[in-house]
Amino acid sequence: MSNVYPSNPDCIFCKIVAGDIPAYKVYECANTLAFLDVGPLSEGHTLVIPKGHWTTLDQVPAPIAAEIGLVVKRVGRSVAKVTGCAGWNVLQNNGECAGQVVPHVHFHVIPRRAGDGLGYRWSAGELDKSKAESLREAIAVTADGFADETTPPAL
Amino acid sequence: MSNVYPSNPDCIFCKIVAGDIPAYKVYECANTLAFLDVGPLSEGHTLVIPKGHWTTLDQVPAPIAAEIGLVVKRVGRSVAKVTGCAGWNVLQNNGECAGQVVPHVHFHVIPRRAGDGLGYRWSAGELDKSKAESLREAIAVTADGFADETTPPAL
Repeated sequence: MSNVYPSNPDCIFCKIVAGDIPAYKVYECANTLAFLDVGPLSEGHTLVIPKGHWTTLDQVPAPIAAEIGLVVKRVGRSVAKVTGCAGWNVLQNNGECAGQVVPHVHFHVIPRRAGDGLGYRWSAGELDKSKAESLREAIAVTADGFADETTPPAL
Repeated sequence: MSNVYPSNPDCIFCKIVAGDIPAYKVYECANTLAFLDVGPLSEGHTLVIPKGHWTTLDQVPAPIAAEIGLVVKRVGRSVAKVTGCAGWNVLQNNGECAGQVVPHVHFHVIPRRAGDGLGYRWSAGELDKSKAESLREAIAVTADGFADETTPPAL
């Protein structure tokens, strides 16, 4: 019996999940899939996705978010070992303004070398201490705060 | 009984975990901690860390990597809701050349707005089809490939 997930017929990643478009798959389980990025930033650039079509990470059911965390670690370790890179980034973009192109959650695993010109643009400010406590309190995530989580699909 | 994790007395994040340095904590459980970044790229910039001192993600025990995946999703959702940002990035750097400054695994949750000048430097190539299959095969992660995973500490 196959799992039932949200799917979008126009989504390129959903087509890869369905097998309608080929991909160089490096890992697959019931809930997740990992494959080489066809537009790599560096050799070994790999994507890890949930099989279900969720646009942003906040929408992913809790157990699947956990599984992705595990798969990203495992795939990252393998990519680093095979490419012999000096370092690697994990990047996940939510929303167009954040650099998301395909609206289906995906984690990039990007091998890095010194002087490769990649990386995140870093322009750090300083935490405004006069606002930090109210900001902290507003963001604070408690067990109760998880009550509205998406119900995971039956597996 | 407290959990026993690897700890580094010189690590600033280990000091935060131990309570020796204050932080604006937004989430805490037995294995993970999240707090406001004191050098934010944007308002609401938050870090999610495992409590144990592991330098890079590949070293994190599997169950804790999974828990981090879940906490990043939960914290990200809250940060996005509270800041009203138009998008957000999840970023995790492994190794100095990849932009890692503190050698204790941490996931950045970075709120984004159009025109903020942040984001990852994108200079995509094209997957070399003549090498892709051998690369895929080398990276391929199987259940057997997980056998050498770090044994998680007793919780």
